Amino acid sequence: MGNGDNEIQQRIQVQIPPRKPFSHSLKSSLKETFFPDDPFKQLKNQPVSRKFILCLQYFVPILEWAPRYNFEFFKADFIAGITIASLAVPQGISYAGLASLPPVIGLYSSFVPPLIYAMLGSSRDLAVGTVAVPSLLISSMLGKEVNPHQNTKLYMQLVFTATFFAGVFQAALGLLRLGFIVDFLSHATIVGFMGGAATVVCLQQLKGILGLVQFTHGADLVSVMKSVFTQIHMWRWESGVLGCCFLFFLFITRYFSRKKPVFFWINALAPLTSVILGSLLVYFTQAEKHGVEIIGHLKKGLNPPSVSELETAFGSPHLLTAIKTGVITGVIALAVMMATAVMITLLFLTPLFHYTPLVVLSTIIMAAMISVIDYEAAIHLWSVDKFDFIVCISAYIGVVFGSVEMGLIIAVAISLLRILLFVARPRTTAMGNIRNTRSYRSIEQYPDANFVPGILILHVNAPVYFANASYLRERILRWIDDEEDKLKHSAKNDLQYVILDMSAVGNIDTSGISMLEELKKNIDRRCIKLALANPGGEVMKKLDKSKFIDTIGHEWIFLTVGEAVNGCNIILQACKAKAKAVETEAADNKV
Amino acid sequence: MGNGDNEIQQRIQVQIPPRKPFSHSLKSSLKETFFPDDPFKQLKNQPVSRKFILCLQYFVPILEWAPRYNFEFFKADFIAGITIASLAVPQGISYAGLASLPPVIGLYSSFVPPLIYAMLGSSRDLAVGTVAVPSLLISSMLGKEVNPHQNTKLYMQLVFTATFFAGVFQAALGLLRLGFIVDFLSHATIVGFMGGAATVVCLQQLKGILGLVQFTHGADLVSVMKSVFTQIHMWRWESGVLGCCFLFFLFITRYFSRKKPVFFWINALAPLTSVILGSLLVYFTQAEKHGVEIIGHLKKGLNPPSVSELETAFGSPHLLTAIKTGVITGVIALAVMMATAVMITLLFLTPLFHYTPLVVLSTIIMAAMISVIDYEAAIHLWSVDKFDFIVCISAYIGVVFGSVEMGLIIAVAISLLRILLFVARPRTTAMGNIRNTRSYRSIEQYPDANFVPGILILHVNAPVYFANASYLRERILRWIDDEEDKLKHSAKNDLQYVILDMSAVGNIDTSGISMLEELKKNIDRRCIKLALANPGGEVMKKLDKSKFIDTIGHEWIFLTVGEAVNGCNIILQACKAKAKAVETEAADNKV
Repeated sequence: MGNGDNEIQQRIQVQIPPRKPFSHSLKSSLKETFFPDDPFKQLKNQPVSRKFILCLQYFVPILEWAPRYNFEFFKADFIAGITIASLAVPQGISYAGLASLPPVIGLYSSFVPPLIYAMLGSSRDLAVGTVAVPSLLISSMLGKEVNPHQNTKLYMQLVFTATFFAGVFQAALGLLRLGFIVDFLSHATIVGFMGGAATVVCLQQLKGILGLVQFTHGADLVSVMKSVFTQIHMWRWESGVLGCCFLFFLFITRYFSRKKPVFFWINALAPLTSVILGSLLVYFTQAEKHGVEIIGHLKKGLNPPSVSELETAFGSPHLLTAIKTGVITGVIALAVMMATAVMITLLFLTPLFHYTPLVVLSTIIMAAMISVIDYEAAIHLWSVDKFDFIVCISAYIGVVFGSVEMGLIIAVAISLLRILLFVARPRTTAMGNIRNTRSYRSIEQYPDANFVPGILILHVNAPVYFANASYLRERILRWIDDEEDKLKHSAKNDLQYVILDMSAVGNIDTSGISMLEELKKNIDRRCIKLALANPGGEVMKKLDKSKFIDTIGHEWIFLTVGEAVNGCNIILQACKAKAKAVETEAADNKV
Repeated sequence: MGNGDNEIQQRIQVQIPPRKPFSHSLKSSLKETFFPDDPFKQLKNQPVSRKFILCLQYFVPILEWAPRYNFEFFKADFIAGITIASLAVPQGISYAGLASLPPVIGLYSSFVPPLIYAMLGSSRDLAVGTVAVPSLLISSMLGKEVNPHQNTKLYMQLVFTATFFAGVFQAALGLLRLGFIVDFLSHATIVGFMGGAATVVCLQQLKGILGLVQFTHGADLVSVMKSVFTQIHMWRWESGVLGCCFLFFLFITRYFSRKKPVFFWINALAPLTSVILGSLLVYFTQAEKHGVEIIGHLKKGLNPPSVSELETAFGSPHLLTAIKTGVITGVIALAVMMATAVMITLLFLTPLFHYTPLVVLSTIIMAAMISVIDYEAAIHLWSVDKFDFIVCISAYIGVVFGSVEMGLIIAVAISLLRILLFVARPRTTAMGNIRNTRSYRSIEQYPDANFVPGILILHVNAPVYFANASYLRERILRWIDDEEDKLKHSAKNDLQYVILDMSAVGNIDTSGISMLEELKKNIDRRCIKLALANPGGEVMKKLDKSKFIDTIGHEWIFLTVGEAVNGCNIILQACKAKAKAVETEAADNKV
């Protein structure tokens, strides 16, 4: 053995990272967890006054970009604002319907939040306004408690309370830097969830397209289908025909715009065109008397819209403040043309909406929602990652057949389960030498790689934590058993060494260290030697503190798998040579 | 560039593992998840009759070892049985007290389960019997519903129902192969949890040691302390003195046995000795009339113990069956001497227990429990792994100040949070070349490693999942920003390449792939090239299916970091040579 030991001493040692005080490492890990974007980086090495200005600009970004705003920006914003407003106006009205609220509230939500966002928001490219999913959530969750048509005032108070607390919750997440919770919604979850929500929203539009007056409060497929097919005699063909025509119009314009991207504005203006066309049609044909419901009819809960009357009607002091703020900021705000456009619509064009048929709004929403159902993404998920596909489909099914909350909970639970399973059941693979190199890689990935006789090299691809410690112990022992079986049949060398490649073991906890200790004891009993290859910094720190390095011996921890194999082979040959020498000596003595 | 490309073509390519049908990989991953111990391995390639026998032996291990049982085993078992029984008898009685059950049930629990375990259990070295924590759980959880002293019969029925369902639940976990749920209780959790439970059990013993009659049903520190210190006038000094004496005796014997392991039996027999000494003391001094409570006094709910009378008293058909089974198996069982010894105690020595003072039982339990509080393990956790220490301490505090359930829930939640945090916030470290080798390692671990000019090498140490995708994108871009800042100040080379070392990236999902795509786009815009080093099999599969390999170019994926650096350098030099050539040419032309 002495021979081999000398050889091993000369190689580069695996190092234990320099010790840091606990407070230091705690601080840096807290910083990485809660401030991954390093928001205070630019404050470094700045005078106090500059620090104050930068801080203010960080929280109120308008202060940063407003001084640089010029006519060029304004022109671009003008066009963008008009385009988005064309969708935002009908969308606002329809989403108000989804949330069982008076349509005017949808319009207000389309212009107040963007104005506030213009002041406080950090992204200049983001359109803020009404969103389908929360609207649906509001009506499906609150609708269970209070009937929005019978008890409008209480329902609206509940909605305002709910939205207020949603805002408080979001602000709290932001202040506590817990935004990373949102990271736990995977791409697959969002695809499935949005698809499901879009399907549900589409289903809700059947009410408007079929001209139904009574409709279920449930949002799931089963209750909507029941509601639609138990009322076949109530279907209005006028409304249906109008709906199909506008749906066709919207799809045609979208198809055309996609083919020729220069005419994107055709698609962008199509919703507003539909609204105007529909309103004119109703106005001149008096279709509202023939089964085509119009917006005007719905405004029974609230007086004609004007800011002053809304104030008394709302009843919630929080929203009152919010609206006041909105109006004030509306006066002083310089940008986001879309909000201004919607505000103009609200102030001057509202009477026009009186004749807008509901069916047009329904078709606009349906067309918008169908494009949200990203079936191509789902197919892509299936082909790339089956587990992600399962997450996506569960979210979809949960939303469509259950409820929005259920879909979300199922998808997040499955996603988390996947992470836990990754850690609980890490992959262990045998490694072999890649021809003409000193690299060792998994046999599964490189089927041509050569096994090293007498040495079992195992790669572990997850941190060794309590959740997988006992599994890993069993699994590694099974690898050793299998290898010994194989060697027994082939009658070649015995298994002499097990090398654990720790390159991919990001961390280890005390359960993991106990596992390594047990493993070492177990294979020591079988006269097999354990070696570690390339343990990382965190792992080395813990192995050192727990004295496992002393147990295994620092000479059995190698920088690379290649060095570990060399080290083992040198010792192996030294032993063989010694054994031979002893044999020869014995034979000599005999002679 | 052409020059460099040629060089690159000659190297060994990173391979995509051979494709397997989906059903195949699903089957193997399900097997790894639910049958990690591969229980049917020995059934392989066996005739049907042999398979049947092996299966039977797997489920009823006594069939396997009984034929090989001989007198040598019996002798060893005899000594072990007597020794364990010496602790089991007083323990059984005291734990019955913890669960607010008549003491005789504790004795029955000490002999029936071991007999069943002898038949069905797989380990020959395990002692089965009464356990403190479940006993405490039973009284603290059921005691809230029914007062065990006022409504003994109902309380006992509830206990039997609860234990029956505990059994059903455990059997279900076993049959459904969900034992891995237990893996989620980490070593640290168990240390903290057991320490907390032991503390709580010790606190309960204050009742016996201080000779209190009234005592709280709460198990937490606060209610016990309140109960003890509001009754100072009820403390019995006789009981207290006796308790201190026996506690001293037990600790002395333990200390002695530890010093001289040959006399281990002194420690082992100490509990039974205490019981006998205590009983004799009470019998001769009639101390029961002077404030030392004895067991006899407690037996008001149940008639003197005899199997036939118990049957009518128990009232639960399940336990009845269990006891019958126990008696029958007791007759036919060959081993586990301890159970037989306890049974003999039960049949012949029960009258002796009449005079056993409760205070002795309390001291025995207290002495046993104090040795369970593994403060050394907690110190070890602190020195090795701070996070594990936090888990341990939370479990302890949860149990001592809250309840057993609360401690368990807090500890498991923190443990899971740690796994999620590991994945959500992976470590990225810059890598450098280790002198005189071709290996590249983290600068944090090897502070002597050399940076490669113009190339940023980053190591990612966790799977790239939805939970960390956006964090990783931000973090890697921050690394690049920092590196560019550094290079700007030093006015050396520009940053030209970013190499991501994927060795430790065990898996990637679709969110992770999108992140890589975005990252590539972003750094392409800065005229920096992205290269990957050593992606594993799973990662290569997904990168291939999602066409990311085509996006990045197969020539930018390298087998090792060293090759990636070489590849980048070759291209870099080729470009420089070309630029120089162009310059020279231009200069020549000028001339």
